[in-house]
Amino acid sequence: MQADGSIDIPAIAPMLAHLVDQGVDGLFALGTTGEGRHLTDGERRAVAEAVLAEAGDVPVIIHVGHNSMVAAAELAAHAASHGAAGISISPPSFHAVTTVESLIACYQGVCAAVPELPVYHYHIPSLSGCTVQPSAFLAAAATALPNLRGIKFTDESMMEVQRCQQVAEGRFQVGFGRDEQVVAALPYGVDWFIGSTYSVITPWFRELMAAFAAGDLVAARAHQQRVVDLVAIMQCHQGGPAVLKAMLAALGVPCGQARPPLPHYGQAELAAIASELRELF
Amino acid sequence: MQADGSIDIPAIAPMLAHLVDQGVDGLFALGTTGEGRHLTDGERRAVAEAVLAEAGDVPVIIHVGHNSMVAAAELAAHAASHGAAGISISPPSFHAVTTVESLIACYQGVCAAVPELPVYHYHIPSLSGCTVQPSAFLAAAATALPNLRGIKFTDESMMEVQRCQQVAEGRFQVGFGRDEQVVAALPYGVDWFIGSTYSVITPWFRELMAAFAAGDLVAARAHQQRVVDLVAIMQCHQGGPAVLKAMLAALGVPCGQARPPLPHYGQAELAAIASELRELF
Amino acid sequence: MQADGSIDIPAIAPMLAHLVDQGVDGLFALGTTGEGRHLTDGERRAVAEAVLAEAGDVPVIIHVGHNSMVAAAELAAHAASHGAAGISISPPSFHAVTTVESLIACYQGVCAAVPELPVYHYHIPSLSGCTVQPSAFLAAAATALPNLRGIKFTDESMMEVQRCQQVAEGRFQVGFGRDEQVVAALPYGVDWFIGSTYSVITPWFRELMAAFAAGDLVAARAHQQRVVDLVAIMQCHQGGPAVLKAMLAALGVPCGQARPPLPHYGQAELAAIASELRELF
Amino acid sequence: MQADGSIDIPAIAPMLAHLVDQGVDGLFALGTTGEGRHLTDGERRAVAEAVLAEAGDVPVIIHVGHNSMVAAAELAAHAASHGAAGISISPPSFHAVTTVESLIACYQGVCAAVPELPVYHYHIPSLSGCTVQPSAFLAAAATALPNLRGIKFTDESMMEVQRCQQVAEGRFQVGFGRDEQVVAALPYGVDWFIGSTYSVITPWFRELMAAFAAGDLVAARAHQQRVVDLVAIMQCHQGGPAVLKAMLAALGVPCGQARPPLPHYGQAELAAIASELRELF
Repeated sequence: MQADGSIDIPAIAPMLAHLVDQGVDGLFALGTTGEGRHLTDGERRAVAEAVLAEAGDVPVIIHVGHNSMVAAAELAAHAASHGAAGISISPPSFHAVTTVESLIACYQGVCAAVPELPVYHYHIPSLSGCTVQPSAFLAAAATALPNLRGIKFTDESMMEVQRCQQVAEGRFQVGFGRDEQVVAALPYGVDWFIGSTYSVITPWFRELMAAFAAGDLVAARAHQQRVVDLVAIMQCHQGGPAVLKAMLAALGVPCGQARPPLPHYGQAELAAIASELRELF
Repeated sequence: MQADGSIDIPAIAPMLAHLVDQGVDGLFALGTTGEGRHLTDGERRAVAEAVLAEAGDVPVIIHVGHNSMVAAAELAAHAASHGAAGISISPPSFHAVTTVESLIACYQGVCAAVPELPVYHYHIPSLSGCTVQPSAFLAAAATALPNLRGIKFTDESMMEVQRCQQVAEGRFQVGFGRDEQVVAALPYGVDWFIGSTYSVITPWFRELMAAFAAGDLVAARAHQQRVVDLVAIMQCHQGGPAVLKAMLAALGVPCGQARPPLPHYGQAELAAIASELRELF
Repeated sequence: MQADGSIDIPAIAPMLAHLVDQGVDGLFALGTTGEGRHLTDGERRAVAEAVLAEAGDVPVIIHVGHNSMVAAAELAAHAASHGAAGISISPPSFHAVTTVESLIACYQGVCAAVPELPVYHYHIPSLSGCTVQPSAFLAAAATALPNLRGIKFTDESMMEVQRCQQVAEGRFQVGFGRDEQVVAALPYGVDWFIGSTYSVITPWFRELMAAFAAGDLVAARAHQQRVVDLVAIMQCHQGGPAVLKAMLAALGVPCGQARPPLPHYGQAELAAIASELRELF
Repeated sequence: MQADGSIDIPAIAPMLAHLVDQGVDGLFALGTTGEGRHLTDGERRAVAEAVLAEAGDVPVIIHVGHNSMVAAAELAAHAASHGAAGISISPPSFHAVTTVESLIACYQGVCAAVPELPVYHYHIPSLSGCTVQPSAFLAAAATALPNLRGIKFTDESMMEVQRCQQVAEGRFQVGFGRDEQVVAALPYGVDWFIGSTYSVITPWFRELMAAFAAGDLVAARAHQQRVVDLVAIMQCHQGGPAVLKAMLAALGVPCGQARPPLPHYGQAELAAIASELRELF
């Protein structure tokens, strides 16, 4: 965002360069941290086009979660036509979705709009309010949504992660989105990790995973503890995506501030976030 | 909506005729029942234009609640330019709004987009997840949001209604939106009533209010009981706006079915709703 | 309570005298404000005996809500043998009760222990966590619990109050327990009112009810507003029953402080409560 | 329990023999599964005495969670005088505990009643409703509650487990109580595991832990999956402790049925549970 709150398209290229530099395997754009929901549909299309144009060989998933599933389907088709590698979707959050049938109905139009692309269910009940058990959804989606290909699981229940994996059996991928407990997800052998903090500390996670793979749990926990400390900064300043933008700026990747309802920080709070972040490096 | 789910603009005129026939004093378009959030912004503009063109002298409030406050401001400006009498707004529901400051920040752009129009805060915590105490918001908005003019209070707490009234003191209007407990709101002397069931049973409310004004509480309760019985039908079929559309069709005002995540009914369930409704008339 | 936290039996007689002086029609002992759940069963019996011995002709309901329904039944039998006019009961709160069948099962032993006494369901979902719809419970209890006689309804939903009244039809009484919105309950003609603030401001409610009966809604609301202001003090100091004890002391009826988890106040906070209370008189 | 609902003391010895046979390192009595809260205080004492008398060398923790912290302190002192190795406590659940200060105040009497014994905070927010962050509580308890020695962590958040461990640093032990995600807890190196399903399938957990220690994550997950399948039976019959009693009976360890509000099963449902359990062995 620019200082007046409008979208800063030229800032996208350096941000992508930073992310690729961090060592990510792919990009997930316009999600929770990317504030897709806070943009107009026109702005979402402009950002998607810029990201897809600049990403080069790096695969990009575009998130199209929206209160209007018709608008989400339009955004998905637009992303497909500009080269997205996949689509992520979450259900409306005003009328909370509570049944498998309703969730399937929500996603039917989006999936039909991009029949050639993999679609991923973004499970984040703490924000979406969607109480549908994800493993039950996947079981039903196996036939109802032919191109649904997996789930971004952003919740704490590892039992439910395992249930999703049991349903998945090659049909679905199960990715994990609670960066603060990656150590808990590693023994489950989840397929991938997508989360907000990878924007700033992907190298820590690479070390964490290497330590776990080497059987060094003490080191893995120590790396995870650093992530927990970073998440504590995000919680302390009350607004994850807003804090991450301040952190990116502190790391030399200016990306402006978040839109309401996320907080807008004054200079003092921006400086505090930068200083707290520096202590972790 | 048409059978294929697209917007049925020609159906709007007969629906407005029906509503005016019911005896309403004004119209509230694209709210919860009007499914504004389930439309694309383009569809919302098209519906707003049609309603404003057909409404004649009847004042119209356009609801612009949205996850994107930038999109909401654009919709508000559009409605103003087409003759809306007022704007209704509710905050984003993905990141739930929890502080007065955040709610003020959310509404600043919308209010600024229509400086000449009254703006109303739509308080419906059961759906929006907004936990901000409305009386505290009104107290802060008195100076922060010059054209905020009142609140549509859709919650059960009558103590909070009274607190809003105490803050209002001529500066704000307090309207009530829980049709199922109008008898509880009448002693408070609220300024107006806006709700979903007025689309089908406004005459019952006229009788209810007349009975209350005449001091006949027994009759007022009896009228309210009929409303409660109608609300029971809505709850039984799990999806208020979807049931109301089926009821309107049963009363000769076809308006199609609701969009996901609201339920889509088969013929048997549509017939059941119609039959249950007939028993109340 | 005494300063060391133990029960102060001699303090009960003057408190009852104060309550009768306030103009109450009956007494409700060991409920939420009376902190029955924070006492041992032995202490509950001692308090019940003292209240029943001192109450004279004033009818007394003893509340026996407990996590153990066996203990509750024993307390009910004890109260009956000492002259209680009725028993109030609420379900266990650790495993929250969510079905009508479970709530009936909970109350069967208590009702059977006092077959000659009326038993009242204390509906206070904000504390008990019991999500059972009270009207559905009453409908089932009509045959399943012969001596269940009514409900103390401490919630905001006036639609549900009306549903309870519809089921009641002479079989049950519906009493109301949200003192802060008595004006909302009066048009429904509920059978009685039981609440915490009657301990200190019963005369205000007498005036409120008289104004309402005389059709003077402006005066009724003004009286209700004073109650709302008093409730605001209780909320501000975070702990209704603890604040009420401080208020009683300020009114010359010392009754010690509350037990954990309710707050224990220092001298400064006790003085603040007393001062805020005085401003309302 | 006996068929009439009363306590079946003679059934305790064979149950303890079964548990020791399962290979447990210690006993945790009168907790959630043991239904301590559904017993009268007299019954709790009788059960505690029997367990402590029969346990021999096996260390026993007695859970004293109660709505009355005075009663809890009495139960703790009683358990100490009969040889308990430790005390477990959780806060009142009617007035939910929401601040560190309140939780400390709740536990002060219990800790003081057994100064020579280790006391453990039973963190199970899904049932207790206690929203206090356990790591913040431990930090405060380090000085405020000298004999508080650890936490039984029964929640899904592994980030919070790690935070508790960071605070613990030798001063506290962190045990884990979500049997359905032990695989997630093992990388954290928690101090011990206490849960309900160990009553019937401790050997599976021994195998799970051995597989994890050997670095065989595939096998560890397979063992965990069996636990998840067992938990699914418990969830399906809606009432964990009640289902566990039916399972124990099916395994030849009759222990009667649960008390309200937990469900009471008919013969058909008991047979279904037994049959579903057999399929897992």
